Amino acid sequence: MATIKDSVHDHIEVTGVARALLDTPAVQRLRRITQLGTAVLVYPSANHTRFEHSIGVYHLADRALAHLGVEGQRAKRVRAAALLHDIGHPPYSHNIEELLHRETGKYHDEVHGLLETGPVATALTDHDLEPDRVADLIAGEGPLGALVSGELDVDRMDYLVRDAHHTGVPYGTIDHGRLIRALRLIDGELVLGEGNVQTAESLLVSRALMNPTVYAHHVARIAKAMLRRASERLLAADAVDAHTLRRMDDYGLRTALRECDTTREYARRLDTRRLYKRAVWAEFDTVPDRLRGADHDRIRTLEREVAEAADVEETEVIVDSPPEPSMTETTSRVLVNGEIRQLGEQSTLVGALRRAQRDHWRFGVYAPAATRDRVGDAAVRELGIDQQGAIVQEDSQGINATLGAFTDRA
Amino acid sequence: MATIKDSVHDHIEVTGVARALLDTPAVQRLRRITQLGTAVLVYPSANHTRFEHSIGVYHLADRALAHLGVEGQRAKRVRAAALLHDIGHPPYSHNIEELLHRETGKYHDEVHGLLETGPVATALTDHDLEPDRVADLIAGEGPLGALVSGELDVDRMDYLVRDAHHTGVPYGTIDHGRLIRALRLIDGELVLGEGNVQTAESLLVSRALMNPTVYAHHVARIAKAMLRRASERLLAADAVDAHTLRRMDDYGLRTALRECDTTREYARRLDTRRLYKRAVWAEFDTVPDRLRGADHDRIRTLEREVAEAADVEETEVIVDSPPEPSMTETTSRVLVNGEIRQLGEQSTLVGALRRAQRDHWRFGVYAPAATRDRVGDAAVRELGIDQQGAIVQEDSQGINATLGAFTDRA
Amino acid sequence: MATIKDSVHDHIEVTGVARALLDTPAVQRLRRITQLGTAVLVYPSANHTRFEHSIGVYHLADRALAHLGVEGQRAKRVRAAALLHDIGHPPYSHNIEELLHRETGKYHDEVHGLLETGPVATALTDHDLEPDRVADLIAGEGPLGALVSGELDVDRMDYLVRDAHHTGVPYGTIDHGRLIRALRLIDGELVLGEGNVQTAESLLVSRALMNPTVYAHHVARIAKAMLRRASERLLAADAVDAHTLRRMDDYGLRTALRECDTTREYARRLDTRRLYKRAVWAEFDTVPDRLRGADHDRIRTLEREVAEAADVEETEVIVDSPPEPSMTETTSRVLVNGEIRQLGEQSTLVGALRRAQRDHWRFGVYAPAATRDRVGDAAVRELGIDQQGAIVQEDSQGINATLGAFTDRA
Amino acid sequence: MATIKDSVHDHIEVTGVARALLDTPAVQRLRRITQLGTAVLVYPSANHTRFEHSIGVYHLADRALAHLGVEGQRAKRVRAAALLHDIGHPPYSHNIEELLHRETGKYHDEVHGLLETGPVATALTDHDLEPDRVADLIAGEGPLGALVSGELDVDRMDYLVRDAHHTGVPYGTIDHGRLIRALRLIDGELVLGEGNVQTAESLLVSRALMNPTVYAHHVARIAKAMLRRASERLLAADAVDAHTLRRMDDYGLRTALRECDTTREYARRLDTRRLYKRAVWAEFDTVPDRLRGADHDRIRTLEREVAEAADVEETEVIVDSPPEPSMTETTSRVLVNGEIRQLGEQSTLVGALRRAQRDHWRFGVYAPAATRDRVGDAAVRELGIDQQGAIVQEDSQGINATLGAFTDRA
Repeated sequence: MATIKDSVHDHIEVTGVARALLDTPAVQRLRRITQLGTAVLVYPSANHTRFEHSIGVYHLADRALAHLGVEGQRAKRVRAAALLHDIGHPPYSHNIEELLHRETGKYHDEVHGLLETGPVATALTDHDLEPDRVADLIAGEGPLGALVSGELDVDRMDYLVRDAHHTGVPYGTIDHGRLIRALRLIDGELVLGEGNVQTAESLLVSRALMNPTVYAHHVARIAKAMLRRASERLLAADAVDAHTLRRMDDYGLRTALRECDTTREYARRLDTRRLYKRAVWAEFDTVPDRLRGADHDRIRTLEREVAEAADVEETEVIVDSPPEPSMTETTSRVLVNGEIRQLGEQSTLVGALRRAQRDHWRFGVYAPAATRDRVGDAAVRELGIDQQGAIVQEDSQGINATLGAFTDRA
Repeated sequence: MATIKDSVHDHIEVTGVARALLDTPAVQRLRRITQLGTAVLVYPSANHTRFEHSIGVYHLADRALAHLGVEGQRAKRVRAAALLHDIGHPPYSHNIEELLHRETGKYHDEVHGLLETGPVATALTDHDLEPDRVADLIAGEGPLGALVSGELDVDRMDYLVRDAHHTGVPYGTIDHGRLIRALRLIDGELVLGEGNVQTAESLLVSRALMNPTVYAHHVARIAKAMLRRASERLLAADAVDAHTLRRMDDYGLRTALRECDTTREYARRLDTRRLYKRAVWAEFDTVPDRLRGADHDRIRTLEREVAEAADVEETEVIVDSPPEPSMTETTSRVLVNGEIRQLGEQSTLVGALRRAQRDHWRFGVYAPAATRDRVGDAAVRELGIDQQGAIVQEDSQGINATLGAFTDRA
Repeated sequence: MATIKDSVHDHIEVTGVARALLDTPAVQRLRRITQLGTAVLVYPSANHTRFEHSIGVYHLADRALAHLGVEGQRAKRVRAAALLHDIGHPPYSHNIEELLHRETGKYHDEVHGLLETGPVATALTDHDLEPDRVADLIAGEGPLGALVSGELDVDRMDYLVRDAHHTGVPYGTIDHGRLIRALRLIDGELVLGEGNVQTAESLLVSRALMNPTVYAHHVARIAKAMLRRASERLLAADAVDAHTLRRMDDYGLRTALRECDTTREYARRLDTRRLYKRAVWAEFDTVPDRLRGADHDRIRTLEREVAEAADVEETEVIVDSPPEPSMTETTSRVLVNGEIRQLGEQSTLVGALRRAQRDHWRFGVYAPAATRDRVGDAAVRELGIDQQGAIVQEDSQGINATLGAFTDRA
Repeated sequence: MATIKDSVHDHIEVTGVARALLDTPAVQRLRRITQLGTAVLVYPSANHTRFEHSIGVYHLADRALAHLGVEGQRAKRVRAAALLHDIGHPPYSHNIEELLHRETGKYHDEVHGLLETGPVATALTDHDLEPDRVADLIAGEGPLGALVSGELDVDRMDYLVRDAHHTGVPYGTIDHGRLIRALRLIDGELVLGEGNVQTAESLLVSRALMNPTVYAHHVARIAKAMLRRASERLLAADAVDAHTLRRMDDYGLRTALRECDTTREYARRLDTRRLYKRAVWAEFDTVPDRLRGADHDRIRTLEREVAEAADVEETEVIVDSPPEPSMTETTSRVLVNGEIRQLGEQSTLVGALRRAQRDHWRFGVYAPAATRDRVGDAAVRELGIDQQGAIVQEDSQGINATLGAFTDRA
């Protein structure tokens, strides 16, 4: 047994297969993958990593299994999956995940290949666990897969609290002890027990508040877009291939960007925080339908058109268009008067949270400070955006703008 | 100057008129008025008082005034109002406020009379402040009154964080530093600056989550109803008069209840936590309109009818019917693209919070454990409640039921 | 099972005999005994009670027993003792303990009599526990008694962290999780395992820092002396007898002091924080040997002499002389290179802490503000104190003086 | 003005020259220098950086200056020094500082050269500050230099609290608000005001507890020794020169070690946490005088001798011999009865802390797990160490051993 001191959950005991896994290079690599990627450029204390998060998720999974009375091999498998759930992450976590999906066909939670061979596979089979079934859990399959990856999973319970601790933004401070105590396994389905509609609401509300404040803060989004664009060019320059990139760590990618001719300028900007600024920052209703969630090739075309219209280098325009907010019903289940019900039906708030995602959706066009205004004008014109909604109103004292406000408007 | 060490805001400097006021009997009395009254029977650590809360509100008001650039007499007046804003509270804070309003015509924030004479008046006039204008601020009048008592007031900012610290329920952990930095005085109106729709949302969400979990927890409501009923009997027995009761502290009221023949049993039950149980706990739509928010006399009549139908003593039935949730628009204002707008218009979430209050509204009938079932049946029948919605489903592991689950169902 | 939400340890599960005990009047009474008594007059947030502390001690005992592998009846007995360890406390905890010992012959941890009959005895015997053996554990007997009451007990681990949380003074923030994990039962003796000399040091250092800052802060000591003197007069006036006083709660004692003619003035002063001031505050070496730890009768004589010399009422002089700091070796044991050793031998720091107690020892004489100087001069003269060491140097910005600095020098 | 959200001090306002400095590459580089270097291999959450620490030190300096009433250019200069105080740190902070001192003649706080030219110099002179005088403050010169770098400096106040927050070890949780309020400038000297002997003690005690638990934890020391040795070989291989190394960041050094033939194995071991183990871990009195604090050349000779005697490669032996603990008196000054006194004279505890440093001093010899025993035997024999004191006693449950216990003994 090893006891680990964690800044969030205090002492965590790691035993059995988990202890063997902890010593593998694949898990140790997570020490060098930051949890929030470029959000550290907004919240300077947010240097925490996927490693400590993975240990935290393992810990909460262990607590949840004890509470649910799940034991033996089944529990061991879930604990292994919890510790390993993030080993598929590329450098800077989600920041370049889409890029790698285009290139390798894999998202971070598709890890069957990573568990098949090497020290991780050895550790698992030494403890009588089949790698494939562990990978299935990481992909969220089965009732206990929902505990590892689902709407009420321990992954989310850990990251909300941990991100709050390290950013200093209190919105993520949920009551994970209560959530875990509210879990029930009923007819092979993971639900929240009687009297816990509000417990479920609190988790969703917390995430809804952390999202625009931390995860999708405009400065984090700008830096993420720059990192993504730089990584694309790194691949294009054959400086590294996609499969290697997927297994690098933050150190490796950052150094590679510094050393490659076509990415050096991006690296320098990220290192010194001389980020692009918002030339356009447009609300949902002000953006033509065809722009929302446009695919990669379409985006590149748009960037070229805007660059040409603004008479700037193509590298000086980045278009950032998130997909439309999903309107899918939450699949969380909760016991009400003895019946298992959809959370969305029971909670006025949950329905509203879904709709409120549109309030915070933004379409962005970014450019260096010097050409920002020119690019903004060209983009509004070329892309057919309603000028009114594209204005970036800055409030010099707004904390949202934090470090983002340094050079000029951000 | 005095420096006070506070468990929430750390060091607080108290100067000038505030320091003089701190030494008055009226303010020192707040040391013996608990902030949450009977909620301590649910959350045993919640023994904090109106005294430390008042110092916290003074501190946040001071920070807000510095941020807004308000100085001189005007600022001094607001600081005095912040420190004094709760001196009108009777023992156990809100628990017997309605009762005292019926008897004395005053709510806790109507304090003109309390500031007119005595050491508080002396301290104010010694510092060139007019007691009446301070009392006006406490009643929420004027733009700076909104800072002391309004939807974005520092009172709420303090109590949410303080109640979270002392109950252990994290939902109240708002970002008061950000809220204060977001405040603006524009054309004499207190608004939140640009980019702060979500800052405002976070305050309202926090309160919406604390409400059912802490302030309106069913065990707190039962004990509050018992305390209220006991206090009514104390007045009826002429053991104390309403004006004296209003100025007592928790110690005095509790001891008085122990000593009076007609209230001794209530005191004993509160002291040993042998509380009444829920005989009926009905959702909004299952209760006939006429029952919702029924007035005091009507309630007493209902109690007598139910007691008679159940064949129990009249004292063994307590009907607890909160008013219908207010559907009034929030009056908070926020700057959006340079315009002052209603928060409700800007935020999908805020509208939903208003509607969601109904989800948590409950009509209760309480009775001693021994007669609870009989009273429940009689009440459903006599009062015309839909039996389905009146069922109390208990989940033995639910934390909502916490200490409430002790004797039987709660 | 009940789950209790605690501000310090978060969720605490209470089961079996502990749950039965929690519902007894003797344990519920602890809700109305403040943990730190008069220290709340220095740290206004410190309103926490023996009730929540007792639940915390129960929780840590439960964790320690699980860690040590102690199970069955033996463990059940310790858990019961942990929950009950403070039920012998009179109102205001330690503040009037010496007085009650003189009158009843009992200290707060001598509870055999309190466990013999009534609901507590019933709960214990219902769970096959003998009240006498539980009382023995509370008195610290046996190896597991050391866990409940000893130098490394869970009582201390809880109160240090809890007092830090509620006063805001961080010195008490120890690492209780590590201390508990370091416990070993070796040959029937409770020791700290290999590599934990420093873990033990940290507990003793924490207490050494909390002591002068919180527990023996001069304002707390003055108020405690006034409360003690008032309680003596209450007994002398036959307003209440010692055995009744021992079983009252803070509310009852405070109200009794308000209602009795010879104690009313003390009650008024405590209620409004118009405390006596330090007329003398002398270091260890400046006080004649015979004064240090003088017994009750001797103290009363000294007070009369000083009062006469100063020409004031006898009630206007309070002499407060703590016993000499104990120079007994700490009895904590720790494993070093496979041997059980005395902590004092292993740790340079622990020896120093013992000696350092003298640095903080103070002899006090207190009087009302108006007669303080006169009483101070008379006391120095009459009692033979070195005038140099008796000077009270105040630093207007010192936080030690906090609220104590209000009226004049404190 | 910019407002930064910090996980320790919450909102920090950065204005004037500090804001200009924040945007310089030299300060932004600190985002990629971890505060605790290899200690993250013991405490996985300790990924915080010199950047956030520097902002924290700036904040505390600003608070201290306001408290001391220092204004104008003098205050501006101190604020700049506070923000810049760590820009001289090489990658991994103190871990390779000695190595770089041998090569470049500079310690991290000798920064005159770094402030003379470039964007930092521009930012300073733009705000009428002379770079040299700022560098003097960073070197601790003058009364206000003591605030930036001295025994009571704000540097220490920040790092203790910050390291506690991020490691989860509570010992560092000092009361910085109180320390700052206790500061006085008397006759050009920085002292602690009346009544603050214990405030000073608490800072020294906190550091004394953090030291063996965090900063000098044996696993951190082993990894640090490996990193130092690897960096020496990197320089020896001419892969990088010392002046370049000094200005690299953690990413750059780590990647360089991976890429150089003679350091690749060290990099691989650090990346996968396959650290050397303790072959010898000897107490102060068991080590011959000549070994303690031996200089670099001497150490290399010893390593060669031990390697030869054990018949292993020279790279498989690392000798780690810290200098003897300094017995210099603390220079902190504190006001006692109106006189400025040496803290050491006033406090029994402070003297003991100095002596107690020897209790925790250890001489180490490290080797790969496979050859550890052989190297240990050879080292004890060759170096003349008392075998008794060199034994590494491990307690499998000890948290000190945390992750260090993974492969075998650590």
